[in-house]
Amino acid sequence: MGEFDLIARHFARPVKRAALGVGDDCALLRVAPGMQLAVSSDMLVAGCHFFEDVNPAHLGHKSLAVNLSDLAASGATPLAFTLALSLPGIDEPWLKAFADGLLRLADEHECELVGGDTTHGPLNICITIFGEVPPGQALLRSGARAGDDIWVSGTLGDARLALDARLGRIELPPDAFESALQRLERPTPRLALGRALRGIATSALDLSDGLLGDLSHIIEQSQVGAQVDADAALQTMAARNHPALRLHDDQWYQCVLAGGDDYELVFTAPASRRDQVMAAARMADTPVTRIGGITKEPGLRVVDRHGKPLARQRWASFDHFA
Amino acid sequence: MGEFDLIARHFARPVKRAALGVGDDCALLRVAPGMQLAVSSDMLVAGCHFFEDVNPAHLGHKSLAVNLSDLAASGATPLAFTLALSLPGIDEPWLKAFADGLLRLADEHECELVGGDTTHGPLNICITIFGEVPPGQALLRSGARAGDDIWVSGTLGDARLALDARLGRIELPPDAFESALQRLERPTPRLALGRALRGIATSALDLSDGLLGDLSHIIEQSQVGAQVDADAALQTMAARNHPALRLHDDQWYQCVLAGGDDYELVFTAPASRRDQVMAAARMADTPVTRIGGITKEPGLRVVDRHGKPLARQRWASFDHFA
Repeated sequence: MGEFDLIARHFARPVKRAALGVGDDCALLRVAPGMQLAVSSDMLVAGCHFFEDVNPAHLGHKSLAVNLSDLAASGATPLAFTLALSLPGIDEPWLKAFADGLLRLADEHECELVGGDTTHGPLNICITIFGEVPPGQALLRSGARAGDDIWVSGTLGDARLALDARLGRIELPPDAFESALQRLERPTPRLALGRALRGIATSALDLSDGLLGDLSHIIEQSQVGAQVDADAALQTMAARNHPALRLHDDQWYQCVLAGGDDYELVFTAPASRRDQVMAAARMADTPVTRIGGITKEPGLRVVDRHGKPLARQRWASFDHFA
Repeated sequence: MGEFDLIARHFARPVKRAALGVGDDCALLRVAPGMQLAVSSDMLVAGCHFFEDVNPAHLGHKSLAVNLSDLAASGATPLAFTLALSLPGIDEPWLKAFADGLLRLADEHECELVGGDTTHGPLNICITIFGEVPPGQALLRSGARAGDDIWVSGTLGDARLALDARLGRIELPPDAFESALQRLERPTPRLALGRALRGIATSALDLSDGLLGDLSHIIEQSQVGAQVDADAALQTMAARNHPALRLHDDQWYQCVLAGGDDYELVFTAPASRRDQVMAAARMADTPVTRIGGITKEPGLRVVDRHGKPLARQRWASFDHFA
């Protein structure tokens, strides 16, 4: 038994629902009769998706959260996940904290770690997650129709604010930085909302690269257009209400429209279902905000609160490779 | 759309069996009614699991082969896989060759690429694979019983021979090197054999870290011991019959007993089922060799063809971190 086997044991716990967990060639899962399996995979690389010196418990949380967020965007219920981990060396306190952050969130959503791989190399975390969804009820990117409202969950832009502060591009009051950092490092996957929106939303996805860039996937796959009220979106941003925080309009818009790392849901629903959307949001205990509408005319238009097109129409999506 | 989205499209093809493939938040899979889902994940890191300058088509093949091998060891039938890829940059010819090698093997086994992730970072390939197996019929590591035979499929040790030659530890005649390199870079996952052994084998696993190290997982999890005939194992090695190849006994044994990267199956079956094992091997068109037996007495003993314990009883397992 090598060191890396020992490490793997940090993460191995008896499974409750899976037929077989960590420690054999394969894990064995039961999928409930008649259910479809929803599958997603995300890879997080040090220096690209997170800072090397990030709090390891937060990193454990985030690594699973971004995967749970994909299930949320599909309206799926979490079932299990695998973890493949490449580590530059053995740092037991780091690993313990990472495992704690990861497994606490896993427990919260009854999502079991069933297998994976541990190896030596540059720090890299790859999680593949499995959920269940009734056939035909998964939320897709392709179902938006002209006349639908566009909604977002929670708060947008705060994660990007924290990133810009960490990179020294802006200065934040300490309390504003701490709040924003929580959004960057410990996003909240919107699973209850995703499930509650089955049969109500016509399309959905989770925001990882920025509102406009991600929304463009919906309009492309649905073959429609969209108009976004930038000021409505801006009102969701938590830091917007901080009394001592002063930014240029362009900086605010950049955070909200192209911030990245929000891990909120953007979704569409017919205007006739506004009451149902609000009821779903209450049931899921998750705030939602209407920020625009789907149009027949293709393309993405961004307007201010008066319906006037913003001067700068193209906002760069958050790009890990810029 | 960034460069990495374009790259992802190298790999995206319409799905045939999955309900939804690449391009949404989750892929959607149908698992046949009553079947269990077998899941495995393997991460391959440049400089650790493969040489940076390896033929990319071979790397694509191997990345999937090592995962298919886990399904084989469980007796599962391949269904689908996800691919998460971290790349230091965009090299189109490299990517095309990698995708070709990967997808050719995928097609051979009707295993669909349904999703994944592409990002920037040190070269890292993480595949998670899904298969189906009837409930209760998966081959586990825990079922070996005293009196069982120990069998291996195919050829052992040749992959290690190629590795040692690449590292300059030994010299090989060019034709011997080429043959051995094929075994290192293009292993054959033994899926037909795994499936044929359902209900016959009492335990199985796939050899990735070397025969003795991997066999120790079976004896630990089955709470038994084992005696291995090193010379019987040695007879499986293809290079053993090369007329111009001269190695010390210790070198031969090292390759076969602790070589690593074999991706053959080691499995156990009652002595009363030898005919059934041979029939399964014929059906799967895969050679198998009996190399020892499971004992009540715990521990792992290695003997020569005369039943005499080998002088050096402890063979280091192949260790990526050595």
